[in-house]
Amino acid sequence: MLEKLKQEVYEANMLLPKYGLVTFTWGNVSGLDAESKLFVIKPSGVEYDRLTPDDMVVMDLGGNKVEGKYNPSSDTETHIELYKAFPGIGGIVHTHSAWATSWAQAGRGIPCYGTTQADYMYGEVPCVRNLTKEEIDEAYEKNTGVLIVDYFKDKDYIAVPAVLCKNHGPFTWGRDAHEAVHNAVVLEEVAKMAARTEMINPDVKPAPQELQDKHYYRKHGANAYYGQ
Amino acid sequence: MLEKLKQEVYEANMLLPKYGLVTFTWGNVSGLDAESKLFVIKPSGVEYDRLTPDDMVVMDLGGNKVEGKYNPSSDTETHIELYKAFPGIGGIVHTHSAWATSWAQAGRGIPCYGTTQADYMYGEVPCVRNLTKEEIDEAYEKNTGVLIVDYFKDKDYIAVPAVLCKNHGPFTWGRDAHEAVHNAVVLEEVAKMAARTEMINPDVKPAPQELQDKHYYRKHGANAYYGQ
Amino acid sequence: MLEKLKQEVYEANMLLPKYGLVTFTWGNVSGLDAESKLFVIKPSGVEYDRLTPDDMVVMDLGGNKVEGKYNPSSDTETHIELYKAFPGIGGIVHTHSAWATSWAQAGRGIPCYGTTQADYMYGEVPCVRNLTKEEIDEAYEKNTGVLIVDYFKDKDYIAVPAVLCKNHGPFTWGRDAHEAVHNAVVLEEVAKMAARTEMINPDVKPAPQELQDKHYYRKHGANAYYGQ
Amino acid sequence: MLEKLKQEVYEANMLLPKYGLVTFTWGNVSGLDAESKLFVIKPSGVEYDRLTPDDMVVMDLGGNKVEGKYNPSSDTETHIELYKAFPGIGGIVHTHSAWATSWAQAGRGIPCYGTTQADYMYGEVPCVRNLTKEEIDEAYEKNTGVLIVDYFKDKDYIAVPAVLCKNHGPFTWGRDAHEAVHNAVVLEEVAKMAARTEMINPDVKPAPQELQDKHYYRKHGANAYYGQ
Repeated sequence: MLEKLKQEVYEANMLLPKYGLVTFTWGNVSGLDAESKLFVIKPSGVEYDRLTPDDMVVMDLGGNKVEGKYNPSSDTETHIELYKAFPGIGGIVHTHSAWATSWAQAGRGIPCYGTTQADYMYGEVPCVRNLTKEEIDEAYEKNTGVLIVDYFKDKDYIAVPAVLCKNHGPFTWGRDAHEAVHNAVVLEEVAKMAARTEMINPDVKPAPQELQDKHYYRKHGANAYYGQ
Repeated sequence: MLEKLKQEVYEANMLLPKYGLVTFTWGNVSGLDAESKLFVIKPSGVEYDRLTPDDMVVMDLGGNKVEGKYNPSSDTETHIELYKAFPGIGGIVHTHSAWATSWAQAGRGIPCYGTTQADYMYGEVPCVRNLTKEEIDEAYEKNTGVLIVDYFKDKDYIAVPAVLCKNHGPFTWGRDAHEAVHNAVVLEEVAKMAARTEMINPDVKPAPQELQDKHYYRKHGANAYYGQ
Repeated sequence: MLEKLKQEVYEANMLLPKYGLVTFTWGNVSGLDAESKLFVIKPSGVEYDRLTPDDMVVMDLGGNKVEGKYNPSSDTETHIELYKAFPGIGGIVHTHSAWATSWAQAGRGIPCYGTTQADYMYGEVPCVRNLTKEEIDEAYEKNTGVLIVDYFKDKDYIAVPAVLCKNHGPFTWGRDAHEAVHNAVVLEEVAKMAARTEMINPDVKPAPQELQDKHYYRKHGANAYYGQ
Repeated sequence: MLEKLKQEVYEANMLLPKYGLVTFTWGNVSGLDAESKLFVIKPSGVEYDRLTPDDMVVMDLGGNKVEGKYNPSSDTETHIELYKAFPGIGGIVHTHSAWATSWAQAGRGIPCYGTTQADYMYGEVPCVRNLTKEEIDEAYEKNTGVLIVDYFKDKDYIAVPAVLCKNHGPFTWGRDAHEAVHNAVVLEEVAKMAARTEMINPDVKPAPQELQDKHYYRKHGANAYYGQ
């Protein structure tokens, strides 16, 4: 079942090592089938160079395994919360990519210092707080998703398709698994440049709002004119 | 038409991923035909691993497409302003290469800390100011070019073939597309080393003028003796 | 003799250049045969691209060579002290991997700033003191092992399978040679991210204990649920 | 003539791009024939991927070209001064490798922070002063060599086979061209780690002398026991 989606999610997972975003098994990508509301996700702890499309696990949004010989990613419950709360997204990525994770460990959102970020993400990439001990003990992975959803409840999750979880790492999303990976690559690149920007000028301020607007809306929305 | 130039500009574009200067489609190279005053430029938003020489777009300096199935780079108007104002240049490059962009985001020019920079660029690589909201709204890409040209109006754009646009990224140029890419590689390398130099010695000063002169003129001008 | 272990230790050694942990011959891996208490180790100063399984040296825990045409690694006596004092470990790695070595040179343990570290190592990775001149003169490599063992005498060497030796570099260990290399890769990655974390936020604190606990025990012990 | 040496010097030159020490043509290796006192050096400004053993230039220590279709490296006069003053060395390397050059641009010698450096270089890698305008104007490349030789006149150039020229970059040497390249790789690695060490601990001190001694003499001199 969902063979095409399994193939897509497999390929999206394999882009993580290609772009240098994962070491060992430290990442996972899922993709949602909009019609059936089933999603396909990487199995937990399986190494990338042994992964096949058939290893992908099919889940429903209630957290039940529908098909697959492996356990799904341990972060599955986080993916579920995001799919339930963010209509229109069709893919989610979690990694421990080094620069984005360093910002997460530092407990800071990534300010928008330039057009590279503004081309894809409207404003700062936020860093959400630590879960409390109670939230961790109750349901760590689910509550990670609940926290992210709560942060975005009055914000535009399409315009900012990324979040950092404090002392943990990033999640990104997109219309499909491939776009979610694309956003994970962008995030790592802007995380790297933002850290270096502050190294070069500790007093740096975010890019002017009008420049951020220009670049974001040149690529998104009704008046976009970038690309073909 | 301009098949040889298309091939050259195609090859110059493909050097950007080879030298690690671009992620995804974040860069473009153009080359000018000195006789016809037509130029060839990368199409907008087309991925490098699908690019062919035939995809290149031929433009005139009035901004009209002369040949090509794709839209030209969204930065085309910037290229036009530079070609019109800088006689003798035949190639232009724009990238978001990580170190040069970090200096641009930091809003600082790159001081000449050593002979690596002096071998190619005479003095500091400047960082020009942000455009105003009016300039952005009126004609963002064109005014980016106008601003660069204005900065160099009483300076030697041949001796300093590179500029940083604040909160955006670098442009470089040269006698042809290939030399412009060469200068983009040099810029990224000196941007990296300058940041590390300041990390190692926060009180560092630029290289002595006589050393800069020696290296620049050993490779440029009537008394050059580097190379064959 | 011990042909299977020699092959395993050879392969584990070859993972060091694959993961970018060694330059030239700056590293070594050994593996212990639990039954015979013999161990297999890389020969001293032999380059990785000329290494073969047959070059591996078989030693006993008294420091006697049992088989092999080469001298064993100059760090052999350190390996022996760890094998004698740490029941249950079957592999040891020493490298000069750049980030872990930089922490060792800085004389600082690596604080646990996030879940990447907590997934594998419970708490801070310690940095042990310099040996005294007397300890160096008496038996440098052996006393390096004695010092590490002394540090862990009232600590859980399974939960923290890594140590930094001040002004020198890291040692890691595991159930077998392959797991010891795995831990060496993890160590280098968390060393890199910890340094960048402090660069991004000089006032950063370690991750909350409950988050460290959650991640460590999600992968280790009776209630682990990560993986298959 | 000197076909074997040409081949060796060619191969040593090709190691520079292999180890990531050069961009474009920014480096050169030479090797000395001890008997004839002729040396072989890379031609000036020829790209590495077009270089052949036949392109190597044969020079005498008076600066005269003995054989070769190309001009020798522009740094040839520096090599000559070192060969004349440092008996026993048979190879010299100059690069603009990024980390070593950053220390040179910062105007600082590289303190010995650990055993990686002590294994190859006894103590700090020095950074020599800028040449004066008079020295530059008179004979820049020759006087670069004179300055290095003057620095080492009462020091052991075998025990410290590397130097940084302020605002320029490193030179290394060794018994032959291959060992000189080896030392250039070591230098870049220790330059990288030293910068990171200071980032992690701004108050760091050099490694204890007894530890430096142990590692240096474990690999050098009458009592060496590292290797085969």
